Amino acid sequence: MNIAIVGLGLMGGSLSLSLKQKSSQYSFIGVDHNPQHCREAVTRGLVSRCLTLEQAMEEADVILLTVPVDAIEQLLPTVLDQLSPDQVVMDFGSTKERICNSVRQHPKRGQYVAAHPMAGTENTGPAAAIAGLYSGKINILCEAGHSSASALRTAADIFTDLEMETIKMDARSHDMHTAYISHLSHVSSFMLGLTVLDIEKNEKNIFNLAGSGFQSTVRLAMSSPEMWAPIFLQNSRHISLALEEYISHLQEFKKLIDSHDGGEMIRSMERANDIRRILKKE
Amino acid sequence: MNIAIVGLGLMGGSLSLSLKQKSSQYSFIGVDHNPQHCREAVTRGLVSRCLTLEQAMEEADVILLTVPVDAIEQLLPTVLDQLSPDQVVMDFGSTKERICNSVRQHPKRGQYVAAHPMAGTENTGPAAAIAGLYSGKINILCEAGHSSASALRTAADIFTDLEMETIKMDARSHDMHTAYISHLSHVSSFMLGLTVLDIEKNEKNIFNLAGSGFQSTVRLAMSSPEMWAPIFLQNSRHISLALEEYISHLQEFKKLIDSHDGGEMIRSMERANDIRRILKKE
Repeated sequence: MNIAIVGLGLMGGSLSLSLKQKSSQYSFIGVDHNPQHCREAVTRGLVSRCLTLEQAMEEADVILLTVPVDAIEQLLPTVLDQLSPDQVVMDFGSTKERICNSVRQHPKRGQYVAAHPMAGTENTGPAAAIAGLYSGKINILCEAGHSSASALRTAADIFTDLEMETIKMDARSHDMHTAYISHLSHVSSFMLGLTVLDIEKNEKNIFNLAGSGFQSTVRLAMSSPEMWAPIFLQNSRHISLALEEYISHLQEFKKLIDSHDGGEMIRSMERANDIRRILKKE
Repeated sequence: MNIAIVGLGLMGGSLSLSLKQKSSQYSFIGVDHNPQHCREAVTRGLVSRCLTLEQAMEEADVILLTVPVDAIEQLLPTVLDQLSPDQVVMDFGSTKERICNSVRQHPKRGQYVAAHPMAGTENTGPAAAIAGLYSGKINILCEAGHSSASALRTAADIFTDLEMETIKMDARSHDMHTAYISHLSHVSSFMLGLTVLDIEKNEKNIFNLAGSGFQSTVRLAMSSPEMWAPIFLQNSRHISLALEEYISHLQEFKKLIDSHDGGEMIRSMERANDIRRILKKE
C-alpha cells in the first residue's frame, strides 16, 4: 500500500515509522510546502521521496491529510475531485464537523474516511515522529456511514496495523466531546504556561521549581500554535462553552481559597479525584 | 543513620527505598496514625517497624516530617521541644513560611532543617513509594542560616544520597515561587478534572477520548485532597494572586476564541511556547 503523507510532521511521520515496523507492504511518499521538512522526512526514512500533491496523487493508494484543520478543509474537496475510483483520502484532523461538511454532497464522498486518532505529543515536525505513537490508543471514525465499504476496509487495515481500537461517532458529537476533553486541556495548558511566564519574572525559578507535576500540566503549552489556532477556530462554540465552565470552577475554587474554606476545598478535590477511577480502569 | 519517618506515604516511603538502594548505613522506623499504612510500610520494607512518635524519638537520629503541612506546623514545635542535642528534625512540606515561623524563636531552632524536594507523583500512601523519585531533582532548603552547621551536614548527606541538587531560598520567596509554579498547576489540574467530570456526562467518552495530552494535564487532579487543602490554606495569598492571573489569561483567550481572532491566538500561544526553552534547557 502506497501512502502519500500530506503534511510531514509528528502524525504522518509516526504513522510511517509504525506501519513500516509492522509490515513491508507499506511505502510512503511525502508532500509538504516546507522544503526543510521534505529533506528531513527523506533523511529520516519517513518517506522515500517528496512530490507535489498532483504527482503524489498519481502514485498513491491512500492520500493522508495531516496538515492543520483549516488546510484540510480547503484541500479535501480538491483532492476528492481528482481522486480515481480505487483511491482513498483520509484525514487525521482534530475537528471533524466542518471538514465532513466540506464534502458532504461530494459525488466521491464515499472515498473519504474521516479519522481522528487520539494520540500525539507536544512536539512537531518530522523529527518528532516516533514508532508506536498510535499503539494501544483509540481512533475515532466519524460519519463512517458516508464512507464506502472498501474505503473503510482500507482504513481498518491501517488502524489494525497501528494497533488502534476504532470507535465511531458522528462529527458533531466528536467535536463537542473533544472540545470538553482534548481541546480544553490544551487551552488550560497554554494559558498556564503564559501565566507562569508572566508572573514569574525569574526564569531560573521556573526551571528550578518545575517538579514533574508542573512539567506534566504545562506540557501541552509547547504544542504548535499553527496546528492549534485552526482547531480553536473551527470548534470555537464548543470550546468556548467548556472554557466558560472551567473559568467558573476556577473562580469558585478561588473563593474557597480566599475564604479559607478547607472543608469545601477537600470536597471539591475529592470530586475531581474521581477522574482517577475513570482514567485508570483497564 | 536511623531515620524516623513521620507520615508513611509517597515522600517518606520513596526516601526509604532510594536511600536503602544507595547505602546500608540507613535504617528506618515509621510513625503513622493509620494502622493500615503502618502495616503496609512494614510489609513493603519501607520501615523495619512502627512506633509512637515518642518511642521513635528515643531511637532516631533524624525525625523526618512528611505529614500534611498543617500537621507539620503543629508537630514541629513539640518535636523540637523534645529533641536531644544530637538529633535533627527535617520537614518536606510544600509550604515553608508558616512552618518556619512556628519555630523561629525556638531555642533549638538550629536542629531543624526546612526542606522541600521538588519531586512527587499524583499517588499517595506507602504503596505509591518508588525508588529514584528524588534522583536528579531539585531540593529547596529554606532559611538555612537558622539551621546549625551540623544539622545542615546531616541533611546534605541525605540529599546527596538522594542524588538531589540543593538550592537555598528564604521561606517567603519559596512560598511565592512555588505558588506560581507548583501550587497553581495543581489548582489548574484539579479544576480541569472537575470541569470535565461536570460537563462530560458520559464517562465512557472521557475514557475513550483521553489522549496522552488530557491525561498529562489532568494527572495532578488525582492528588490527595488531605495533603493539598492545607497547602492552599497556608499559601492562600500567593496562590490567590496566581489564580487571578490565570483566570484573567483564560478570559482573554476565550475572547480571542469568541471573536475568531486567529492571529492574536497564535501570538499568545507562541509566547506560551517559550516555556519549552526554559524547561528543556539542560
